Amino acid sequence: MQYPEPIAKLIDSYMKLPGIGEKTATRLAFFTLDMPQDEVDEFAQDLHDAKTKLHFCSICGNITDQDPCVICSDPSRDQTRILVVEQPKDIMALERMNEYHGLYHVLHGVLSPTTGKGPEDINIKSLLTRLQQHTEVKEVIIATNATPEGESTAMYLARLIKPAGIKVTRLAYGLAVGSDIEYADAMTLIKAVEGRQEM
Amino acid sequence: MQYPEPIAKLIDSYMKLPGIGEKTATRLAFFTLDMPQDEVDEFAQDLHDAKTKLHFCSICGNITDQDPCVICSDPSRDQTRILVVEQPKDIMALERMNEYHGLYHVLHGVLSPTTGKGPEDINIKSLLTRLQQHTEVKEVIIATNATPEGESTAMYLARLIKPAGIKVTRLAYGLAVGSDIEYADAMTLIKAVEGRQEM
Repeated sequence: MQYPEPIAKLIDSYMKLPGIGEKTATRLAFFTLDMPQDEVDEFAQDLHDAKTKLHFCSICGNITDQDPCVICSDPSRDQTRILVVEQPKDIMALERMNEYHGLYHVLHGVLSPTTGKGPEDINIKSLLTRLQQHTEVKEVIIATNATPEGESTAMYLARLIKPAGIKVTRLAYGLAVGSDIEYADAMTLIKAVEGRQEM
Repeated sequence: MQYPEPIAKLIDSYMKLPGIGEKTATRLAFFTLDMPQDEVDEFAQDLHDAKTKLHFCSICGNITDQDPCVICSDPSRDQTRILVVEQPKDIMALERMNEYHGLYHVLHGVLSPTTGKGPEDINIKSLLTRLQQHTEVKEVIIATNATPEGESTAMYLARLIKPAGIKVTRLAYGLAVGSDIEYADAMTLIKAVEGRQEM
């Protein structure tokens, strides 16, 4: 016996999401059957809206429902700094700290020889155009992830941008706040020692 | 800065699913944005269909898109046995073993004094009516979960059904196949010893 088709199809749809296997998808599908009709309808509508109403900001590449996005169109933000991230969700993490008030640029990926991602496949060209057009930019802060790919993308960008006389910085590596040295991996410790600061 | 509304709403919808917190919901929502349009539309449609096209079988309470369900309407199945489960998904687990060819009955819950679920709140009455109408039923196999609530529901049902001269059985307790005695909990070991069988 198979599941009735509507639930089998819903399980298949849930399984397309990352980290959700058959067992979890089945649990979610049966949970959906127990949800109130209006919540399920809202869920379906939200899926549709997220896909149709959102697009990438034509300036920075952030996800937005207006163009330019709220950050790019906010004149009160520091126009002299651009912080470069891999993904739109990184912007949210940085905005939550409420400390940085400059602009952003989203690469939508990193250079990755293993998956064949070259400079043309990520949002680098628009960053360079942006730097040419907006000569008020004095600093590019590279906040790619602390991974080998993130690191090599950062170095690639630094080599491209520094010749134009723009300061290029990279987020600090080190121990996470609240973490134990005992459990820190060797690379993090090396970086934490290298980056030590005078007290 | 907040997320644009369409994505914030989608995150909220994902968070209504069991076991999905804000971080996972955010990851799923951003993943959704990267999915092809047709897959997202299909997902939305599947959610809608699952809710509108499925209902409970009027005989056994299983989830179905036809009434009676494929099992109840299959004359080749053994009409003398009814296996009682808590939830429709339990039927799928049992059907996968391809060993049992009788009928089913879904309680849609268990008796639970802590959550105030009494005999009227679960699908017991329809089981008794079914047994009265179909005198060919010779055995009721109770397959509620191996929890205190599942156990007391099984005992409650046995007391109701046995006086009608119908055999009532309960799935065996014991060690899971492939499990280590070392890691079995005390209750399981007690049940495994109690239920030991001659070799």
